[in-house]
Amino acid sequence: MARPTPLSGFPEWLPDGRIVEQHVLDVLRRTFELHGFVGIETRAVEPLDQLLRKGETSKEVYVLRRLQEEAGAEPDRAGTLGLHFDLTVPFARYVLENAGHLAFPFRRYQIQKVWRGERPQDGRFREFVQADIDVVGAGALPYHYEVELPLVMAEALGALRAIGVPPVRILVNNRKVAEGFYRGLGLTDVESVLRNIDKLDKIGADAVAALLVAEAGADETQARACLELAAISGSDESVIDRVRALAGESNDLLDEGLAELGALIRAAAVRAPGVVVADLKIARGLDYYTGTVYETILVGHEQLGSICSGGRYDTLASDGANTYPGVGLSIGVSRLVSRLLSGGLVTATRSVPSAVLVAVSNEEARDRSDAVATALRARGIPVEVAPSAAKFGKQIRHADRRGIPFVWFVGEDQSADQVKDIRSGEQVDADAATWTPDDADLWPRVVPA
Amino acid sequence: MARPTPLSGFPEWLPDGRIVEQHVLDVLRRTFELHGFVGIETRAVEPLDQLLRKGETSKEVYVLRRLQEEAGAEPDRAGTLGLHFDLTVPFARYVLENAGHLAFPFRRYQIQKVWRGERPQDGRFREFVQADIDVVGAGALPYHYEVELPLVMAEALGALRAIGVPPVRILVNNRKVAEGFYRGLGLTDVESVLRNIDKLDKIGADAVAALLVAEAGADETQARACLELAAISGSDESVIDRVRALAGESNDLLDEGLAELGALIRAAAVRAPGVVVADLKIARGLDYYTGTVYETILVGHEQLGSICSGGRYDTLASDGANTYPGVGLSIGVSRLVSRLLSGGLVTATRSVPSAVLVAVSNEEARDRSDAVATALRARGIPVEVAPSAAKFGKQIRHADRRGIPFVWFVGEDQSADQVKDIRSGEQVDADAATWTPDDADLWPRVVPA
Repeated sequence: MARPTPLSGFPEWLPDGRIVEQHVLDVLRRTFELHGFVGIETRAVEPLDQLLRKGETSKEVYVLRRLQEEAGAEPDRAGTLGLHFDLTVPFARYVLENAGHLAFPFRRYQIQKVWRGERPQDGRFREFVQADIDVVGAGALPYHYEVELPLVMAEALGALRAIGVPPVRILVNNRKVAEGFYRGLGLTDVESVLRNIDKLDKIGADAVAALLVAEAGADETQARACLELAAISGSDESVIDRVRALAGESNDLLDEGLAELGALIRAAAVRAPGVVVADLKIARGLDYYTGTVYETILVGHEQLGSICSGGRYDTLASDGANTYPGVGLSIGVSRLVSRLLSGGLVTATRSVPSAVLVAVSNEEARDRSDAVATALRARGIPVEVAPSAAKFGKQIRHADRRGIPFVWFVGEDQSADQVKDIRSGEQVDADAATWTPDDADLWPRVVPA
Repeated sequence: MARPTPLSGFPEWLPDGRIVEQHVLDVLRRTFELHGFVGIETRAVEPLDQLLRKGETSKEVYVLRRLQEEAGAEPDRAGTLGLHFDLTVPFARYVLENAGHLAFPFRRYQIQKVWRGERPQDGRFREFVQADIDVVGAGALPYHYEVELPLVMAEALGALRAIGVPPVRILVNNRKVAEGFYRGLGLTDVESVLRNIDKLDKIGADAVAALLVAEAGADETQARACLELAAISGSDESVIDRVRALAGESNDLLDEGLAELGALIRAAAVRAPGVVVADLKIARGLDYYTGTVYETILVGHEQLGSICSGGRYDTLASDGANTYPGVGLSIGVSRLVSRLLSGGLVTATRSVPSAVLVAVSNEEARDRSDAVATALRARGIPVEVAPSAAKFGKQIRHADRRGIPFVWFVGEDQSADQVKDIRSGEQVDADAATWTPDDADLWPRVVPA
């Protein structure tokens, strides 16, 4: 077998990169759980017809077939299956399927891989990890969750600052503001306006204006007003006044949206100052959002695109009898981690868990080394035993190559054991029943590079 | 959308079941890391030709295609992709691909989902989680790892006894013993003998004897000798003597295998007494094992099949210039967890992380409740805030339904806060800056049911 080469779009990390990713996931999980979100996992596959309900993502789906569908076998009752392309569609299905067993409002987090058959680019993969939080209600869901959820994400991403992750800005908008404003202008094809405003960063204001005229039924004045709205941003309530001034005559939808947006800005100024910014150009492509929408940029890495997006949805999950409105955000973990690693922002202090390598004097005495390792592990110290009774210099190099800070030398009897810090060269008597490394050396740490 | 129904073979857990599974995964991860194994993840897909190298699993593979392969797009350079059906094949590929960046012997653990298009049965799924450990050497790998790895698994599974997981027996054999014995009998189609001996539990001794005659070139006497070997088992070194007595004349391969098997039994008797049992009928279907092989039964649940299997392999990963021999075991996490849940063996003390529900007196005062929640979380206490300012009785029921033990009532000023243990009804003054629940109530625990 020739040496295999990586598959474009399917990122994999070396062990030290995986330590970074695992740390990111651990921090996210802990933050989510501190906020009372319970973890769930859904299967990787959904019936294709469910994945295609939204239409526009159809070309991204990977479809599965069994290599040998046997002639005599019963066909898959569920029909064709595809890999999920996000965690929202499977979560909506999970809620409907298990509604009778869940307590609402249901707070869940979900950290899993998703797949999209897109052309790979920087920060855009075919297989990647998402970390989602959502709150879903039965029948109704109060607005305050639209305030709470981005603040949970602000806290989660803020907790990563300690390892060298740049600060983030969570950009927020409200579909009711946009729709109320457009309708106030006399524009009725709101979806088309949103879809074209969403292209602002890619094609620029003039091209969007032309599209609004060509596709969304706008005249020049209406198109310019849409662009002026999209140009409004800020992190205090003056944003609300500027939208009002631009809108002229008000309407119920606009009023409701502005009240919501104002509440979010006020709460964020107290609980996550400087993190949440109202940005009226945020549209989000998918059409199921009905209230607040979110995107998140990594400051200094804006070209990477959003690393945490989401919004309020009212009709994603419905079984006819009941509707389950929700609000959620999704962190693009692979996009973030890939930038942390490729940008040299973050590093792990070593590439293995072990704090100690127990040396082996000769193979006949390996059981003495094993016993030391067992004693250290029983007290929560990660340890491995040398692979062979090579010269001690070689055993020390074995530790050094992996970043293992300590090498343990087993004496003739237990009182003659010694441990060497191979960074300083200091070697001291040590007893496996009591010796403990510094906290900073116990486990690999993830730190700014 | 009608209420969806589960897909056979694709298990999903309700939140309390997922808490159990997550706890199992956490215990495994911690044990593996204490033993110096570093976690890696590989992509879910491999080129189909790599997945099919072994032939016999071909019908189990799920093949991927993009729903809309666009006419103008470049084709996938790597050709057809399939979902991995185990973690060993991708790990072997990862080792070859990254050999220049890894330090050998390389100790890794890997916890991921795998997929097999098999007909679902009890404990046999189409999508399931495996937890693997392997040690791989460059060029050579000492035998002592074949002793170490099952003992790591014994410790990991032993650590789960505390939550109600039944004891396990790790059944071990050695391919060299089997092959040396068969060759000593004059049988040369060793693979065929192994493949048929592997069917003993399913079809019984007489049917296997007939197959050995029909397919493996054995006469009646040879077939009976193979069955007598397969009947030998025990957890002390008398097993070695019984094999020797049965074999009559010895040979180098048999001697080497018996020396290895003896060393494993001796070490296991000290380090995991009663857990490791030599069982000469263990064959393992896959043909790449070359030394020790392992299967693991859950005592009292033998019909479930092996929950942790593996072995020593010499030729799985080779790039022509270099060979990477290894030894590894894989826990079938979904099979184990599914039995723990369906058998009512294990339970979670609640279905959400939250230890405290902070009540809300009226929506205008929600920010006071949020502030209490923030203060508690800052000290590591998982908290959620009530969804609405309903009557307190309803808010208490909200906590009760989820198993949240404490409800916090926010006073007019901070000194008037109180917390109620809703199990005992006891309500006391409390300060969010200092109050702490009992350790047993801080996080949901996983306990024997």
